Amino acid sequence: MHDATEAARAQRARAELVTEQVLESFAGCPDERLKTLMRALTRHLHAFAREVVLTEAEWEAAIAFLRACGDVTTDARQEFVLLSDVLGLSTQTVCLGDPAEGDATEATVLGPFFAEDAPRIPFGGDLSLGASGEPCLVTGTVSDTLGRPVPGAGIEVWEADADGFYDVQYGDGRTAARGRLRTEEDGSYRFWAVTPTPYPIPHDGPVGRLLQATGRSPMRASHLHFMVTAPGHHRLVTHVFVEGDAFLASDAVFGVRPGLVRTFTRHPAGTPAPGGRVPSGTWTDVAFDIVLSLA
Amino acid sequence: MHDATEAARAQRARAELVTEQVLESFAGCPDERLKTLMRALTRHLHAFAREVVLTEAEWEAAIAFLRACGDVTTDARQEFVLLSDVLGLSTQTVCLGDPAEGDATEATVLGPFFAEDAPRIPFGGDLSLGASGEPCLVTGTVSDTLGRPVPGAGIEVWEADADGFYDVQYGDGRTAARGRLRTEEDGSYRFWAVTPTPYPIPHDGPVGRLLQATGRSPMRASHLHFMVTAPGHHRLVTHVFVEGDAFLASDAVFGVRPGLVRTFTRHPAGTPAPGGRVPSGTWTDVAFDIVLSLA
Ligand SMILES: [Fe+2]
Ligand SMILES: [Fe+2]
Repeated sequence: MHDATEAARAQRARAELVTEQVLESFAGCPDERLKTLMRALTRHLHAFAREVVLTEAEWEAAIAFLRACGDVTTDARQEFVLLSDVLGLSTQTVCLGDPAEGDATEATVLGPFFAEDAPRIPFGGDLSLGASGEPCLVTGTVSDTLGRPVPGAGIEVWEADADGFYDVQYGDGRTAARGRLRTEEDGSYRFWAVTPTPYPIPHDGPVGRLLQATGRSPMRASHLHFMVTAPGHHRLVTHVFVEGDAFLASDAVFGVRPGLVRTFTRHPAGTPAPGGRVPSGTWTDVAFDIVLSLA
Repeated sequence: MHDATEAARAQRARAELVTEQVLESFAGCPDERLKTLMRALTRHLHAFAREVVLTEAEWEAAIAFLRACGDVTTDARQEFVLLSDVLGLSTQTVCLGDPAEGDATEATVLGPFFAEDAPRIPFGGDLSLGASGEPCLVTGTVSDTLGRPVPGAGIEVWEADADGFYDVQYGDGRTAARGRLRTEEDGSYRFWAVTPTPYPIPHDGPVGRLLQATGRSPMRASHLHFMVTAPGHHRLVTHVFVEGDAFLASDAVFGVRPGLVRTFTRHPAGTPAPGGRVPSGTWTDVAFDIVLSLA
């Protein structure tokens, strides 16, 4: 047993020496921030390998996994983003960059489906643009952490349709369930969208196989994406989630924050909505007041 | 200042909560080893992000880097292997899997240039097969950790030519500077090769740009690759390095082990070699005795 202990100790010393050599190799890095990042990455990566006593077969599987992610990646299919998402690294990064100031609305992940140049809609306009789904009236205000309304704030909203797809996923150039508007003089906004429903992240690739192998669901809790901008304020990228949604506790990308969940109230068919519209079927409404941090 | 401290504390708590949520998401993983690996990876990855306070711009750069690695990857160009190599993860994994028993010869990285079905050569044969370089006579024995010779052990050897390229890198189907042989009844072996010279790892892709940005060299210390197999013994994948080589202390993939460095002795042109060959120019010889661990 003494020999085995001795061998294990010698082996551990050699493994730790390798880490020291890699850290030392970055000594001449001319960019101090890059040096810090690479050294920290090295320490944590090696600590991971040593903790689990990573085998060569596991290392090979990891290399093959990364290659498979590269193989399916295109502008429209960002498998490395999905990987970061399902490992919670995306939401961790968002948390770290969130000013988290006073009662400011929390940030959450951007996701892969934001698109530039969403159509501009007026106060009370409809951004569903033919997307499948139940009508949903969204109202609220944008204010700052001192309680002052923010007039003219830019709001961009995007969401999946009732079939679980974003417009960009159809690949036919359509624009739907996506739009932008500005807050009124009193900081208020109002628009029609479709009631958000759960959808799976793209799961027919290596990340989907990882979720399956680990017993995890690819489903995201129902949400509307918001990006809110105003001069003098931090840009806010967030979601509003649906109270009672089945996937709030198991969101595939860990985007849910308790402070971002709101009640979506369902109204019977024929109920007139504020602004005069009378949807032919049921509809929902939700209030989502947004608080921006001062920059 | 109180508010800022409070906000920082709240933010840290939220970031740590994200990590807990990701760890919990693997609770249902049916494969215990995979669960252990994914949870450890999550902890170390998130700890890295928190330690450096990873920014969204840095996260985006990392995603773009991985994508670029995928873009250049083919069977013949394994950029994710190179990435693992230059971060020392490959050699770390080798260390962890090395039995490190008694005076067994240390293992080091396999590298991306091993090929199956190398030509079989006899005792004293030449595996350079037309590769550019100075002739090098390699002699030694294979024994076990109890000092017993291992007859009939399989030895595979491969190396770069004097231009810094492995045969497979030429892409013309050639086989050179590569061969396999078996030890004699007394465990001895002997073959001709070319004197190893330093060469750069492929550095015209994202990994090369990373090395450049961090002030690191792509050069590998001169070496011959060995893979040694014998029934009842652990397979040994290793190198022999050249004493006095300029890159021993800065090998790009951290493959050097002090115990693997040997003296390559240079002989004047016209000096007869053991076995009767008289190379027309200078030549070198090296002795490399190999000790295998019992399986
Ligand atoms: Fe989404
Ligand atoms: Fe090599």
